[in-house]
Amino acid sequence: MAHIDLGVDEQEFPGITGPMKYRPETAKPLNELAEVLLRGPHSLTRGERELIAAYVSGRNECTFCCSSHSAFAAAQLDGGYELVDRVVHAHDETAPITPKLRTLLAIAGAVQAGGRNVTDELVAAAREEGATDLEIHDTVLIAAAFCMFNRYVDGLATFAPQDREAYAVQAKRIVEVGYGV
Amino acid sequence: MAHIDLGVDEQEFPGITGPMKYRPETAKPLNELAEVLLRGPHSLTRGERELIAAYVSGRNECTFCCSSHSAFAAAQLDGGYELVDRVVHAHDETAPITPKLRTLLAIAGAVQAGGRNVTDELVAAAREEGATDLEIHDTVLIAAAFCMFNRYVDGLATFAPQDREAYAVQAKRIVEVGYGV
Repeated sequence: MAHIDLGVDEQEFPGITGPMKYRPETAKPLNELAEVLLRGPHSLTRGERELIAAYVSGRNECTFCCSSHSAFAAAQLDGGYELVDRVVHAHDETAPITPKLRTLLAIAGAVQAGGRNVTDELVAAAREEGATDLEIHDTVLIAAAFCMFNRYVDGLATFAPQDREAYAVQAKRIVEVGYGV
Repeated sequence: MAHIDLGVDEQEFPGITGPMKYRPETAKPLNELAEVLLRGPHSLTRGERELIAAYVSGRNECTFCCSSHSAFAAAQLDGGYELVDRVVHAHDETAPITPKLRTLLAIAGAVQAGGRNVTDELVAAAREEGATDLEIHDTVLIAAAFCMFNRYVDGLATFAPQDREAYAVQAKRIVEVGYGV
């Protein structure tokens, strides 16, 4: 049970959806940030950006966010869940993603551990694979934002379904409609 | 020098202000989130909420955010910088803040280390001192948000002035105008 009374059925509004119902004033900018970063016009695909979000959430061991964004990534990447699992759960360095995305995931992993872990070498490696300033900027901010979302969800002890299928309906909504701005 | 070309003079636009100029699409929700959490109508004073932000930024060792929000807290708390220094830098358990705020800072510190560190005991202690659900919610989200802001600022290796006086102009602006939404 969540640490505070969110005023909702937690089974019906799991994870971040409960606190977002509870506090719409903060839900608005949080959803707008997710929409710009994960679905706005970009040189990285929506699936690639969701994969970065899922990867960081996995490293933060946030079940709800990792399950959600793994579902959103799987729904928007050709490799589906098989690819997502290799990257997010197995940390498989041979998973078939672009070399550029691999270097961006390394930057995201550094951000998760702490901002000052992003070294000149990590940034240079991303540039060598063709990463632009905007791609580097957004990777840093996606990773940083999920260090917030993950702590928000787990800091309030919200409910997280264990079953992968529980995330399918929300995935369909995100793909078709977005983060509800 | 920052990891990417922010298109600004970094001395003139230090810390988060450079990336916010660079990417106004994400700056908008980030500023709106800060405005609601730190300056919106609340049972915690603006000074108390800025103190939570400074405390978390100090624990994340983010010079720019800790200096900024220490300045914003000092400008809005009766104890000024002397009080802020005792809480943020010395972690002085006898600093003259309310017992309730002390328990909320303990929750914020737990969130900084990771969301699942917020225990039932920490929440019960805050309730015993009169903390409301909304105060607990916002403490968790302020702490989580600064785990994002700190990583954003340091993950891009932005410039942070060392001199406390460099933060005085911005403090005046935040107190009088706010986060520019």
